[in-house]
Amino acid sequence: MKAIILDDGTGLERLRCVQRPIPEPARQQVVIRVKAASLNYRDVEIARGSYHTSFPTPLVPLSDGVGEVVAIGSDVTRVKVGDRVCGTFWQRWVAGGFEMAQAAYQLGGPLDGMLREYACLDEQGVVPAPAHLSHAEAATLPCAAVTAWHSLVTEGALKPGDTVLVQGTGGVSLFALQFALAAGARVIATSSSDEKLAQARTLGAFAGINYRRSPNWAEAVLELTGGQGVDQVVEVGGPQSFAQSLHATRRGGQISIIGYLGGTEGAINPLDIFRRQLRVRGIPVGSRASFEAMNRAISATRLTPVIARRFDWMDIAEALAFLESGTHFGKVVLEFPDS
Amino acid sequence: MKAIILDDGTGLERLRCVQRPIPEPARQQVVIRVKAASLNYRDVEIARGSYHTSFPTPLVPLSDGVGEVVAIGSDVTRVKVGDRVCGTFWQRWVAGGFEMAQAAYQLGGPLDGMLREYACLDEQGVVPAPAHLSHAEAATLPCAAVTAWHSLVTEGALKPGDTVLVQGTGGVSLFALQFALAAGARVIATSSSDEKLAQARTLGAFAGINYRRSPNWAEAVLELTGGQGVDQVVEVGGPQSFAQSLHATRRGGQISIIGYLGGTEGAINPLDIFRRQLRVRGIPVGSRASFEAMNRAISATRLTPVIARRFDWMDIAEALAFLESGTHFGKVVLEFPDS
Amino acid sequence: MKAIILDDGTGLERLRCVQRPIPEPARQQVVIRVKAASLNYRDVEIARGSYHTSFPTPLVPLSDGVGEVVAIGSDVTRVKVGDRVCGTFWQRWVAGGFEMAQAAYQLGGPLDGMLREYACLDEQGVVPAPAHLSHAEAATLPCAAVTAWHSLVTEGALKPGDTVLVQGTGGVSLFALQFALAAGARVIATSSSDEKLAQARTLGAFAGINYRRSPNWAEAVLELTGGQGVDQVVEVGGPQSFAQSLHATRRGGQISIIGYLGGTEGAINPLDIFRRQLRVRGIPVGSRASFEAMNRAISATRLTPVIARRFDWMDIAEALAFLESGTHFGKVVLEFPDS
Amino acid sequence: MKAIILDDGTGLERLRCVQRPIPEPARQQVVIRVKAASLNYRDVEIARGSYHTSFPTPLVPLSDGVGEVVAIGSDVTRVKVGDRVCGTFWQRWVAGGFEMAQAAYQLGGPLDGMLREYACLDEQGVVPAPAHLSHAEAATLPCAAVTAWHSLVTEGALKPGDTVLVQGTGGVSLFALQFALAAGARVIATSSSDEKLAQARTLGAFAGINYRRSPNWAEAVLELTGGQGVDQVVEVGGPQSFAQSLHATRRGGQISIIGYLGGTEGAINPLDIFRRQLRVRGIPVGSRASFEAMNRAISATRLTPVIARRFDWMDIAEALAFLESGTHFGKVVLEFPDS
Repeated sequence: MKAIILDDGTGLERLRCVQRPIPEPARQQVVIRVKAASLNYRDVEIARGSYHTSFPTPLVPLSDGVGEVVAIGSDVTRVKVGDRVCGTFWQRWVAGGFEMAQAAYQLGGPLDGMLREYACLDEQGVVPAPAHLSHAEAATLPCAAVTAWHSLVTEGALKPGDTVLVQGTGGVSLFALQFALAAGARVIATSSSDEKLAQARTLGAFAGINYRRSPNWAEAVLELTGGQGVDQVVEVGGPQSFAQSLHATRRGGQISIIGYLGGTEGAINPLDIFRRQLRVRGIPVGSRASFEAMNRAISATRLTPVIARRFDWMDIAEALAFLESGTHFGKVVLEFPDS
Repeated sequence: MKAIILDDGTGLERLRCVQRPIPEPARQQVVIRVKAASLNYRDVEIARGSYHTSFPTPLVPLSDGVGEVVAIGSDVTRVKVGDRVCGTFWQRWVAGGFEMAQAAYQLGGPLDGMLREYACLDEQGVVPAPAHLSHAEAATLPCAAVTAWHSLVTEGALKPGDTVLVQGTGGVSLFALQFALAAGARVIATSSSDEKLAQARTLGAFAGINYRRSPNWAEAVLELTGGQGVDQVVEVGGPQSFAQSLHATRRGGQISIIGYLGGTEGAINPLDIFRRQLRVRGIPVGSRASFEAMNRAISATRLTPVIARRFDWMDIAEALAFLESGTHFGKVVLEFPDS
Repeated sequence: MKAIILDDGTGLERLRCVQRPIPEPARQQVVIRVKAASLNYRDVEIARGSYHTSFPTPLVPLSDGVGEVVAIGSDVTRVKVGDRVCGTFWQRWVAGGFEMAQAAYQLGGPLDGMLREYACLDEQGVVPAPAHLSHAEAATLPCAAVTAWHSLVTEGALKPGDTVLVQGTGGVSLFALQFALAAGARVIATSSSDEKLAQARTLGAFAGINYRRSPNWAEAVLELTGGQGVDQVVEVGGPQSFAQSLHATRRGGQISIIGYLGGTEGAINPLDIFRRQLRVRGIPVGSRASFEAMNRAISATRLTPVIARRFDWMDIAEALAFLESGTHFGKVVLEFPDS
Repeated sequence: MKAIILDDGTGLERLRCVQRPIPEPARQQVVIRVKAASLNYRDVEIARGSYHTSFPTPLVPLSDGVGEVVAIGSDVTRVKVGDRVCGTFWQRWVAGGFEMAQAAYQLGGPLDGMLREYACLDEQGVVPAPAHLSHAEAATLPCAAVTAWHSLVTEGALKPGDTVLVQGTGGVSLFALQFALAAGARVIATSSSDEKLAQARTLGAFAGINYRRSPNWAEAVLELTGGQGVDQVVEVGGPQSFAQSLHATRRGGQISIIGYLGGTEGAINPLDIFRRQLRVRGIPVGSRASFEAMNRAISATRLTPVIARRFDWMDIAEALAFLESGTHFGKVVLEFPDS
């Protein structure tokens, strides 16, 4: 089979296609025929060598993908041949708090990821994909969608009538927008582009703020919320953005820090967290239980992920560069030929 | 002013209209001009003398109503003259668990209720009514809607993709249906009438079960949920109904017992709770914090309560008899002349 | 190796010793040399054929035990050879809610249990035993202790100053007593024996009630709690006991139904749950995450389980009969020769 | 009666004694004869004029105190004459989340505080003091103890076996130490003084770290916790301390920011919160429900607060200066003559 790997050295030119044997499933493993994969900013950083951790190479990149089960090992009870499944980012975080995750079992680094024709995964590390989604749509779920769900619902206990602030129009933010609306909440979106704000409003946001024109955008949020601030922020920026979020959140509200974007410079005074009595938490994707609950919701509400652009999986370098350019609205997807 | 009171003796004939002085607000009290009131089954039982507790008479009945603030006492900070507010069922349950409620401060018994032209309430015991609702609609909220919200959201942490079972088409059940849909959940309704089931489907239920034709309706629920059972039941019946609910709920799911209807005969074996590992809880309306959160949701989603029938407030006996007949679909409302 | 099995037919005479090959660990499995095992009432019911489910035979009974890891399969990362571990009752319930448990993976039925010299378990289904405990003590934990912990702490969020009611002096009840005290709570114990009540007081209970002398023991509980009732009950009896518990619990309090003892006859009216606004839930042992949290607590507080009596593992029939007699105070343990 | 007030201008010299009429209770108010009061760092800042908000003067300072009810207004049901009660810091935060607090109703600014012979409070804003405590001990509870309880228990759901880090030996930190021990948790204390660390160990801390000798004290914490970090930190320092806490907390653990001490300079990168996936929250004292639950725990465990030093209430300036010097171990208390 074909696989794309990262080798030593840095940069997108490290990516190359190799031949590998089709994997055989051991006990409690499944082998899937990959149908589509999707990109996260983490994948760009790993490929660029700027990720905060480095992994052994060669590495098959990409944590997110969907495929059809083509073989199962012994003692597999959760899926059967023919099922269509997504892999989970944390292959061993089944349920419970983040302390249950094991760092050595992340797909796309250090574990080989989805950029190959066949992938071998633990049966505990796959979930059936919602039936109404195309392969490309289903491939967008494992990181971005689960992160948004885990933030807003699992940890945030979002409820109808809450107001949520989403930042920009990347994958996590648009899923957060869609899940918030599905849960009966209201959404305020920020972006540097009026055109994207218009798109966010089309998706259902009740207001959009251009943070380039309003760098002190917390004021605009307070105005839109009767001076109270929002109930939840899904924070995907760096310190400057976080400082605004601290002021845009209601007393006792919650900020979920996703935080791969926006740089690492800056300064937050903990008193700002104290004075507005906020709950701030880091959200590292989420558990398989969150993924499964999210899929029930996606199926029940017939939600469809927003895809910014599709590439052939062999065009991975071009796709990563496109994601890096930051001009997308939604997820960047890789399709596999016969998918 | 005019007020309707219950006097000693039993039955609806005990209700009569009297003249009372218009109340003056003391410190931290407000006086409202009542615009509309609504009925709950509890009001029928109190009027009939069949409620599990008896209250001193004369008593102004009805816990639920809405009015305009016409006077405020000293040290009132939460509302001002001209605001339109609902009273809370538990006048002193501001927030937190049920242990914070004080039994001596329930509207409509033992405290005088809303069936009078002017009512004097504690400022901690009123909440602004959602602006888009008519008086009649706003009057339906204090018991039935808050009970449904407190069950599903405050205690139940309902989330998109969950499945909820609602029983019959009374006030609590229809609010539960509407809130579940607003929160992205799916709803199964039961009724003895195919016509009402059709109405429930029009409101958004994805399935209806006629429990007269299917007395063993838990089987139908299991079929509709792939053998799993529902995530939550809002249980408004008696022991027979509860026995079905125990089998219609998924392992680890929740049953909220509302429980004024359906009689008091019957038998539940606690092992049935154990074997399906259920969470069963009694829901006594809810706190003011639940009411306020619910109103934000009602405003954000533009939800409108379902009204079965409207009566002039002087026709209280007729209205109670109508509710008692059990033929209603939604709430029974009393309107005040100049409302 | 030697193993004791249950064969077709009913009664303790079905238990017999057979020779079996020592198991080999497959991928993600571990093999342990069993050092001690302990009994639960479930084991009596399975051996008697009175358990609510029947399992294929021959079956190696007993869910609870401790052993030393003597071999590990491939891809095992959680334990190593030489570690001392307990098996988990639900071999696949790692964390999260009960919906994560899989009924086909219970030790001691349908899966072969601990009554054998060597047992092969999934690496996800073992937890290191607290170092300060003897083998006999460690063997008591998997069902009784985890059930008590999951009830009071994981689901009940017990806190200092709460009051807990424990019933009788079996394994779950004494662990509940010990955990409640460790968490700063107060404990009321019930028993039919004044001698056992004295022992419970020695362990730290502040009051004991002889339910034989006071069959209406809820009254005594109310008296001991200033008329309020207790915050939590660990309910191990049947309907009669449950009816008392409903009245002995404070408004908004919690009853955890463990429920293997006390028969299946009787009747509970759901209105009794409603009127005191209780939370009632079935507790099916607990997750591995609960087990691990409990072990940290046992280590930190140097808690030692109470052992009623020790038997040689070959005397299993006698040990089961002793447990069945109901005269024990604490856990019944089986020791393995060279342990 | 005598009262001590702050007038315009800055510094402790603004404090002076004046004559005021004894207050009369209005509806739902109580008047207490103050028996003892205690100091918090907030009181120093208000007296110094360095608090982040300024209040109208003249102001009677001090939020914390205890007294005997000597008169009650109409409609008072929660207490009676002769009861001994503490005032609550947030006079209107009865229960629920922080959004229920009203900033205009804080004792000791903007509301007149406890430094007077008689204080008039809302009946919703007082709680009975634990009976076994002296007046001086009871006076220490409203801010420091409730903050520690709300952090660890109400928001933190502390459980036996958890490890808690407390910083320094001020009031909040010592209460956190005592509550953690009462709940079966283990405690690590930090201080700049070996003598105080020895005292903390005497109170039950299992380890102490001198942060002057080990400025990079997070390393020492990781060593003491097998590399995992603690479950909870009660953070009372500024940014430098917070940066250490971020590294001393286990993945998924919780940091409660109390934060009046330690300056306002510094910088935290939100990625540090993300990378260890922490929960960070500001803790603004707590609700009356937290206070009441805490008092039950204090009574049940016979806990006694640690008092550093007692002053006559007329020596308020000296007492504030002592607290400001930072040499105390426990709470600084003011006693009233005939108390």
